[in-house]
Amino acid sequence: MRKLHLNVFLMGVGHHEAAWRTKGTDPSRVTDIRHYQELAQTAERGKLDSVFLADSLSFWGDIKYHTLGGLEPITTLAAMAAVTERVGLIGTVSTTYNEPFNVARKFASLDHISNGRAGWNIVTSAFESEARNFGGGLPAHAARYVRANEFVDVVTKLWDSWTDDAIVADQEEGVYADKEKVRAIEHEGDLFRVHGPLNVPRPPQGRPLLVQAGSSEDGKEFAARYAEAVFTAQPVIFSAMAFYADFKGRLAKYGRKPDDVAILPGLSPIIGSTEEEAQRLREELGALVVPESAVGALSEVLGHDLTNHPLDEQLPDIPGVNEGQRSRAGVVMAMARRENLTVRQLLGRLAGNRGHRVVAGTPVQIADEIEEWFTKGACDGFNVMPPTLPGGLEDFVDHVVPELQRRGLFRTEYDGATLREHFGFARPVVTRA
Amino acid sequence: MRKLHLNVFLMGVGHHEAAWRTKGTDPSRVTDIRHYQELAQTAERGKLDSVFLADSLSFWGDIKYHTLGGLEPITTLAAMAAVTERVGLIGTVSTTYNEPFNVARKFASLDHISNGRAGWNIVTSAFESEARNFGGGLPAHAARYVRANEFVDVVTKLWDSWTDDAIVADQEEGVYADKEKVRAIEHEGDLFRVHGPLNVPRPPQGRPLLVQAGSSEDGKEFAARYAEAVFTAQPVIFSAMAFYADFKGRLAKYGRKPDDVAILPGLSPIIGSTEEEAQRLREELGALVVPESAVGALSEVLGHDLTNHPLDEQLPDIPGVNEGQRSRAGVVMAMARRENLTVRQLLGRLAGNRGHRVVAGTPVQIADEIEEWFTKGACDGFNVMPPTLPGGLEDFVDHVVPELQRRGLFRTEYDGATLREHFGFARPVVTRA
Repeated sequence: MRKLHLNVFLMGVGHHEAAWRTKGTDPSRVTDIRHYQELAQTAERGKLDSVFLADSLSFWGDIKYHTLGGLEPITTLAAMAAVTERVGLIGTVSTTYNEPFNVARKFASLDHISNGRAGWNIVTSAFESEARNFGGGLPAHAARYVRANEFVDVVTKLWDSWTDDAIVADQEEGVYADKEKVRAIEHEGDLFRVHGPLNVPRPPQGRPLLVQAGSSEDGKEFAARYAEAVFTAQPVIFSAMAFYADFKGRLAKYGRKPDDVAILPGLSPIIGSTEEEAQRLREELGALVVPESAVGALSEVLGHDLTNHPLDEQLPDIPGVNEGQRSRAGVVMAMARRENLTVRQLLGRLAGNRGHRVVAGTPVQIADEIEEWFTKGACDGFNVMPPTLPGGLEDFVDHVVPELQRRGLFRTEYDGATLREHFGFARPVVTRA
Repeated sequence: MRKLHLNVFLMGVGHHEAAWRTKGTDPSRVTDIRHYQELAQTAERGKLDSVFLADSLSFWGDIKYHTLGGLEPITTLAAMAAVTERVGLIGTVSTTYNEPFNVARKFASLDHISNGRAGWNIVTSAFESEARNFGGGLPAHAARYVRANEFVDVVTKLWDSWTDDAIVADQEEGVYADKEKVRAIEHEGDLFRVHGPLNVPRPPQGRPLLVQAGSSEDGKEFAARYAEAVFTAQPVIFSAMAFYADFKGRLAKYGRKPDDVAILPGLSPIIGSTEEEAQRLREELGALVVPESAVGALSEVLGHDLTNHPLDEQLPDIPGVNEGQRSRAGVVMAMARRENLTVRQLLGRLAGNRGHRVVAGTPVQIADEIEEWFTKGACDGFNVMPPTLPGGLEDFVDHVVPELQRRGLFRTEYDGATLREHFGFARPVVTRA
């Protein structure tokens, strides 16, 4: 039977922007490595495929209200590797503000350190604020993807620059490696000239897992060509099914099969022992959002200044915004109207999901939702985004995972040792005469 | 009483190029993170100030004979941090092939992960083979140092971009940070434009420790301006004393005092329970060097082809090479003549030190040497380079360290928690109205 793949997306003390204000979280743990180590251990206890750390190369948002700033992903994952044995470790690194040799090396090293559990979430860094930390103007979207393509080609060539059997280590004869099996790549492309070989031996996985989350046309083509796991924001099952079918259909032209890539939409589960408790948790989180920190952003989305609108009244009608529209403004209006939300409640909802699916309910209800999406061709699993950490992950592992296991939808033990094995992907082999 | 500072320079399974062929080492551990974690734990058991990982961004040397390739230093140090509590963690990162924002972040993150034990060994990457992995030609020596200077300025500004008290984390009021205390640096220099602030909160040490090892004129001036610990290769006490006096004399012009920098010459101790045993170990290591792997390099140094000279005969006279010369060729000739070394023996000696001091002897003899250098103004401590690992470090910690402790020359317990505290340096404070 086909099994779900579950990744947990770790972010500070939770994905909800007010998570740090709840009693169950400790905001000082945002920079505490033990926090992340314990989260990885919890994920491993739940037999999840992997943990994932996002990244950006600047601030965005208002640090007065939000827990901005934290640890760098790859150093964090290396320290998490030291206290876990099986769970995969996926980190984000930008192709726009790094060099391929350095990135190939960093992930090859993390793959050795974790005995084959490293994954690279490839991003191209879309923010002006990031560009300003690297000398200036943001390269155009298309140019960033052109760079990303050649960048990934160089990185994979470097990972392949040692064959799997290059190291001989014959102490008696004094021969360490077969020189013919450790070779320069001599890459001479439009953007990069990289001689090689890599100065890290072949990674245990051959190549660390490639992950991508771009949703633009360029992003989807890039992912169809390279990615082995795809993160995506899909608020409803119909859009998820359409994305899934579209994406899997793009693979053939790159000589790939539908099963070569796992599609994992984001899911933020708000878990209660009853539905009422879950809804109450959701409302409590929403009520902790500081309206001043969010009303500006909402005004911008709707194209209408809400600063002076009473927070506890319903969202007003806004000229030109229609809940039938497919735009972001239309989606927000539809959400407000569907549940008769006040502005304050709407801000709370938006603070919790950033466009991803939020499900508040019992473990059985959440498992139902997961099963429905999985069996109806909307996904191969989920990118789980707990609203609070560590509590939201502990609840998921202790209550939702066992329900999924009872239904035969999720592994009860790890079958393999590496991240590739968790996803059922073969290890790329490099041999050479 | 003034105390020694001891750093251990970790390199694969040992600094001697034939280390991997000895019975006590296992070459497969070159990429085994547990090897490095155990070494860090051994260093911590010995109360050493720090462990250190060098780095280069390419191969150099012949992988047929040498254990080239290994783990990337910063990921390795992050995993070592996870299994230690006190020992400092110094990693090498190049200013020539990185961006200051990324480097500031990496070390700030390592400093958080280790609770204040990170140090940055700043290098400028002198090899053509490194340049070829980053697009092409090696920048000129002076240009590399111009870049290094501005690079370090930017990095320290980024570390200082959050004040020590910027994070408020008032859960009740919903205020996370004081915006006035997390500020853009707006660096606009000749080579870098970096807006900031850093997206990692102020590191526990304020600034990770800065370490340098350049021995050129540019390198020494750079170190005099920025470095807090200096690694240096000094084969004899007189050259070490001259270097020490010269270097400490350079500090005043940068507004610094002699005690603001610790000078640590390299020392490779070959430890035996008797002097004879130590000498035998030295000869055994030397005999394991594959002559073909070394005779080419020696021929190049001497400007004379030795390929056809019998290995077990003494080094021939070479026209134009005089043991009184200060050049590298002259030093090598002097070494050969002083001890009547055969070519094979000479290759063995050179394989073990790469220009650093080698002392073969009992723990008492090695402690005598350390004490002499320390008390005669040749150093503030040592960069210990065990010929084999883990054995050479274990012997040093178990036999030499206790002897130094008995003499009152070295700490018996850590007084402080951070690397800065081990070196007796104050924590830089950043406050802002």
